[in-house]
Amino acid sequence: MSAQTGRFSYAEGGVVAPEGFLAAGVTAGIKKNGKRDVSLIVADGGAVPAASVFTLNSMAAAPVLVSRSHVSSGRIRAIVVNSGNANACTGENGLADAHAMARAAADALGCEASDVLVASTGIIGVAMPMDAVLAGISDAAEGLDSSQAAGDAAAEAIMTTDTFLKQTALSVDAGGVRYTVGGIAKGSGMIMPNMATMLAFLTTDAPLTSEACQAALTSAVDATFNRITVDSDTSTNDMCSLMASGAAGGEDIDPGSAALPIVAAAVREVCGELARMIVRDGEGATKFITVTVKGAASESDAEAAAMCVANSPLFKTAIFGGDANWGRVVMAVGKSSAIVDPGGIEVVFAGITMCKDGTGFAFDEKAASAALGEPEIEVVVDLHVGDFEATVWTCDLSYEYVRINGEYRT
Amino acid sequence: MSAQTGRFSYAEGGVVAPEGFLAAGVTAGIKKNGKRDVSLIVADGGAVPAASVFTLNSMAAAPVLVSRSHVSSGRIRAIVVNSGNANACTGENGLADAHAMARAAADALGCEASDVLVASTGIIGVAMPMDAVLAGISDAAEGLDSSQAAGDAAAEAIMTTDTFLKQTALSVDAGGVRYTVGGIAKGSGMIMPNMATMLAFLTTDAPLTSEACQAALTSAVDATFNRITVDSDTSTNDMCSLMASGAAGGEDIDPGSAALPIVAAAVREVCGELARMIVRDGEGATKFITVTVKGAASESDAEAAAMCVANSPLFKTAIFGGDANWGRVVMAVGKSSAIVDPGGIEVVFAGITMCKDGTGFAFDEKAASAALGEPEIEVVVDLHVGDFEATVWTCDLSYEYVRINGEYRT
Repeated sequence: MSAQTGRFSYAEGGVVAPEGFLAAGVTAGIKKNGKRDVSLIVADGGAVPAASVFTLNSMAAAPVLVSRSHVSSGRIRAIVVNSGNANACTGENGLADAHAMARAAADALGCEASDVLVASTGIIGVAMPMDAVLAGISDAAEGLDSSQAAGDAAAEAIMTTDTFLKQTALSVDAGGVRYTVGGIAKGSGMIMPNMATMLAFLTTDAPLTSEACQAALTSAVDATFNRITVDSDTSTNDMCSLMASGAAGGEDIDPGSAALPIVAAAVREVCGELARMIVRDGEGATKFITVTVKGAASESDAEAAAMCVANSPLFKTAIFGGDANWGRVVMAVGKSSAIVDPGGIEVVFAGITMCKDGTGFAFDEKAASAALGEPEIEVVVDLHVGDFEATVWTCDLSYEYVRINGEYRT
Repeated sequence: MSAQTGRFSYAEGGVVAPEGFLAAGVTAGIKKNGKRDVSLIVADGGAVPAASVFTLNSMAAAPVLVSRSHVSSGRIRAIVVNSGNANACTGENGLADAHAMARAAADALGCEASDVLVASTGIIGVAMPMDAVLAGISDAAEGLDSSQAAGDAAAEAIMTTDTFLKQTALSVDAGGVRYTVGGIAKGSGMIMPNMATMLAFLTTDAPLTSEACQAALTSAVDATFNRITVDSDTSTNDMCSLMASGAAGGEDIDPGSAALPIVAAAVREVCGELARMIVRDGEGATKFITVTVKGAASESDAEAAAMCVANSPLFKTAIFGGDANWGRVVMAVGKSSAIVDPGGIEVVFAGITMCKDGTGFAFDEKAASAALGEPEIEVVVDLHVGDFEATVWTCDLSYEYVRINGEYRT
């Protein structure tokens, strides 16, 4: 599938859509259901410029600690990922296991362990089944390929409670060269922005320097992954990485290059697509909700207010119930730190103005009910105190969320 | 019912248990289900020292604005409350309605409108049915009585989604005089501490000055109502008030009096009982959960970490499912602002140590499963970085919470 949207051309794919990358996804037996659970993403020609952002949860998992250290050089060769076990709250043994995963991948690829990032996702507090993990890494290294099937397998092997595979890729022209950016992600629960949120791995064949990678990734994540929430819970294992192979050719792109904003916009678009896929696949989600707060005194006010609405269990259950309960939107904005004018606030639900000048505004309940029956709901709050805005994406809170998470570990 | 617990004697009661107060609760027709919906609580002999704390939600409702102004004199005669309509997001008309409620009560009692506090709870954004409200206030004023039946009716008339009536009273000896403190409360959803949280009205026959009322109330609320959460949502209408009739006699009790700490402890005990009743009646709650964080670097760290656990949907659904998912406790502590030592944290679930030195600690799954089947669950987290602790009370997140709030308005 390929489509042209604005200046971006969407391509089939994920991490292998850009030139210069190989991937693999195998079944190592970490997951009890027999599904793929070890991925490898490799820069074909050796270590390349890369950047990564990590969870701000202070109980960060062992793979986060290892990867944070390894990426500090600004160049990496490969990312090894397992699903089914988060290797979090596993102490010194967990740290040794994360190092062993990097070492196993490095040995198979003929590089340094410090050139390998490690990511894990799954249950917290259980020792890694290292025999299975190491055998899986070896299998994955043997199966590395640049085919779409290999990319799909890598995307599949990072899934946990996800119900669909999340990947996207697009191309953009900058400085006369066509660059491709691709990415895969996983995430469905324990999703709340405080930096990376979940696992996402992006690749590009643009010749970004390490600094350009970091700049492009940080600004993209701030506007995308950091603006989604499923349940307000921040994982111990979140990580989002970008590797730049430079295989498409052209001049090096550094933070001062004219091409950087163009490639960075493509990175942001890929992050946005992946972030919205995570929300669409939010645990138990029946609705995809876009919350925009405008007219705020600052962008951080707009974001704080939008996030308060998006995280409100009362708002989320009302949407699940198809109830145009705009009072809960106002309540949630009011409990945020944003400056508000109680007599000026306006709430538009699915295109229907329900609150104006801070008070209820007569609306057609039937039309509202029909609009709230749609799978995608837009809520716009105008604070009327300034010129800033922010958009946050979330999903509703359903019986299914309670079921999934009441039964997860057992 | 009367019982002796420590230095407190529990009495039957609520707001009329202390000497010097009258109450009434009537059906005015604001609620469609025909249940009581207008309450009056009156100091029998005229205006008395009083204090109140209010929601910090910046979309504070009209009755909050009116009461905040009226209580600033430090003395009030009466509190008029309606349930079924929050009079929030109702603009200038709502403000006029709140003033009219105070005026109607004042006229019936023969006092100034500024001597009357007004509180409302129910749906947001709908105009108050003022004919019914004013008729109800007049009925209530005629039915004022110091009997327990009148106190019960007043407690009943402030309920919304509450499934049981919340009131308590106790007596304490200070300076040779026996003082009684009583209170009623309502609250079940949109419960998250940021000051008063919900409606609660306390009375005492101790001769507290206005300043002593404020001191006793503020410290009590900080340790009780501000440490409960049902769903992390802060209402627009929260209010907690204390009126002191002085009818039990004795010297005036001001902030310097030796009797104040004794009476304040009784106020705190009543607030604590009422706060825990609200959690027990949390929307859809099947479990009552006590989260204690100890070994913290400061009390605010302990409180922040405990509150993060108590508000985590993943933690709450795990408890609902009877799942000893201690990893979610660690995740929630980690996302808080508290200083933690990832290698030192300890988690004890229902008396069973599940995590020690930051890693999983072998435990008997069968015993854990049995303990988690109990209606009351205690979670203790020791951060091992300091000497401070805090306890927060919450409930689980069930299918029923989703059902109640998916259907509330419709």
